[in-house]
Amino acid sequence: MEPSSRIESALEAAVARASAEPAPPQLAQAIRHAVFAGGARVRPRLCLTVAAACGDDAPELADAAAVAIELMHCASLVHDDLPCFDDAATRRGQPSVHAAYGERLAVLAGDALIVHALETLALQVPQAPQRAAQLLTTVSGATGVPRGITAGQAWESEPEVPVAEYHQAKTGSLFAAATVAGAVAAGAEAQAAQWRSVGEYLGEAYQVADDLRDALSAEEELGKPAGQDSAHGLPSAVADLGVKGAKERLDRLVEEAVGAVPECAGAEQLRAGILKEMERVLPKTLGCNAA
Amino acid sequence: MEPSSRIESALEAAVARASAEPAPPQLAQAIRHAVFAGGARVRPRLCLTVAAACGDDAPELADAAAVAIELMHCASLVHDDLPCFDDAATRRGQPSVHAAYGERLAVLAGDALIVHALETLALQVPQAPQRAAQLLTTVSGATGVPRGITAGQAWESEPEVPVAEYHQAKTGSLFAAATVAGAVAAGAEAQAAQWRSVGEYLGEAYQVADDLRDALSAEEELGKPAGQDSAHGLPSAVADLGVKGAKERLDRLVEEAVGAVPECAGAEQLRAGILKEMERVLPKTLGCNAA
Repeated sequence: MEPSSRIESALEAAVARASAEPAPPQLAQAIRHAVFAGGARVRPRLCLTVAAACGDDAPELADAAAVAIELMHCASLVHDDLPCFDDAATRRGQPSVHAAYGERLAVLAGDALIVHALETLALQVPQAPQRAAQLLTTVSGATGVPRGITAGQAWESEPEVPVAEYHQAKTGSLFAAATVAGAVAAGAEAQAAQWRSVGEYLGEAYQVADDLRDALSAEEELGKPAGQDSAHGLPSAVADLGVKGAKERLDRLVEEAVGAVPECAGAEQLRAGILKEMERVLPKTLGCNAA
Repeated sequence: MEPSSRIESALEAAVARASAEPAPPQLAQAIRHAVFAGGARVRPRLCLTVAAACGDDAPELADAAAVAIELMHCASLVHDDLPCFDDAATRRGQPSVHAAYGERLAVLAGDALIVHALETLALQVPQAPQRAAQLLTTVSGATGVPRGITAGQAWESEPEVPVAEYHQAKTGSLFAAATVAGAVAAGAEAQAAQWRSVGEYLGEAYQVADDLRDALSAEEELGKPAGQDSAHGLPSAVADLGVKGAKERLDRLVEEAVGAVPECAGAEQLRAGILKEMERVLPKTLGCNAA
């Protein structure tokens, strides 16, 4: 199955389980809205691509990992859009969850997605205890405290923001979880540290690309209000380095990511995929020179 | 070790792990505030009491279950107190988390506690895969969708609230998880269905007691604004049955809970403990006649 349709099928099964009777109807709809609102599925595709490069000998486990990571990402977006954070009325060109269903259901949909993400992995423990245990702590570590997404987001409430910690926790952690989880799901745990590096470089590259998009893109292209980072005074590679400097940094990070891919059956294909992916996420006015 | 000091030690260890470097300082404080603000620890005590009645042959696992359940309970209180829900400035006589640390950190502290609750169980998978897997799905099922706490809370946003589903999901589910988890942690999985009944009866009893307290107690005794349920138009046993009817219902539920305790080494002690506990949670102006 094509990675993207494989991901959508796995997400559909997970959301169907969450929104089954006796779920309250509006919460079920809010969860569905949060998960199926046109996301690019960057992290679960990365997870499955790494699993494939490592042999993908347990595809159900890889699917569960990809689903858990994407559900966590969706949960973080729903809560990030809340009035007390970004107060975003739109997301990917559609109403944000709180705009469509109200703030209460947005809080609860995020909470439920966090639980459901880890439950998806917990259901794999009986079949593959060792790998599933490691997937669980990989995903929880990337999302909780002291160094996951929630920690990253919380740095924005501190008077002084350590920029590297902030980006690593807020964005890098879930990218690193995606690459590590892909490897662990396929039994390549011995290479987990190398795959973590790949994910960390890509996470930072994606963050820089996002900063560039945020600074340069028209609101239409982005599907959300542009210029949010500078409006909120958040750390940004463009603010620190300028557009040219940020673009150079991005190219270097992509090179580092490609260079960090460990030797495995699908290494060459994966390196090419990384370059293609980074082209996709760049603003249309820029190109990626790292190839 | 006394159950209550055993619970505090286990919670302290879990919160120390969450708030270790490099956690953002205010988020770490908000989490600590959420967990150590004078909670009665009803659910983790119930969990450890059931584990003890079943032999408690794996105390670390029982501790992890009790911690996971209490962290989930704390997370739900933090999010329930948010301005978009109860907008409660106080909790247990102290500032609520959002009153003390702001709404953003309250959302994030709740999110982080949910992740950390399940991570605490995930860390037990290598030592006891089967029991830990069941503990994970017991706790996730009691908190997520379609029938956990988040679902229960979401029923409040529906135009029609099925009262039994609502109470079962919002309160009963975590009590049932506490009894089931206590049994599972101690290897008494075969009696899980009976323990679930005990937890469900107790959860409903606790809910009725809470309704009675909410209707009758002075704000000083409760530590939070009184009369919240009727003010928000939520389903309440007192509104449905009156004070006398609600008290009779409570006595019947306690009897049912006591009657449902399966035969095990510590059954008698546990039955006595249930009666004592229900005395404690009743408003001081009422007494429990079920003994």
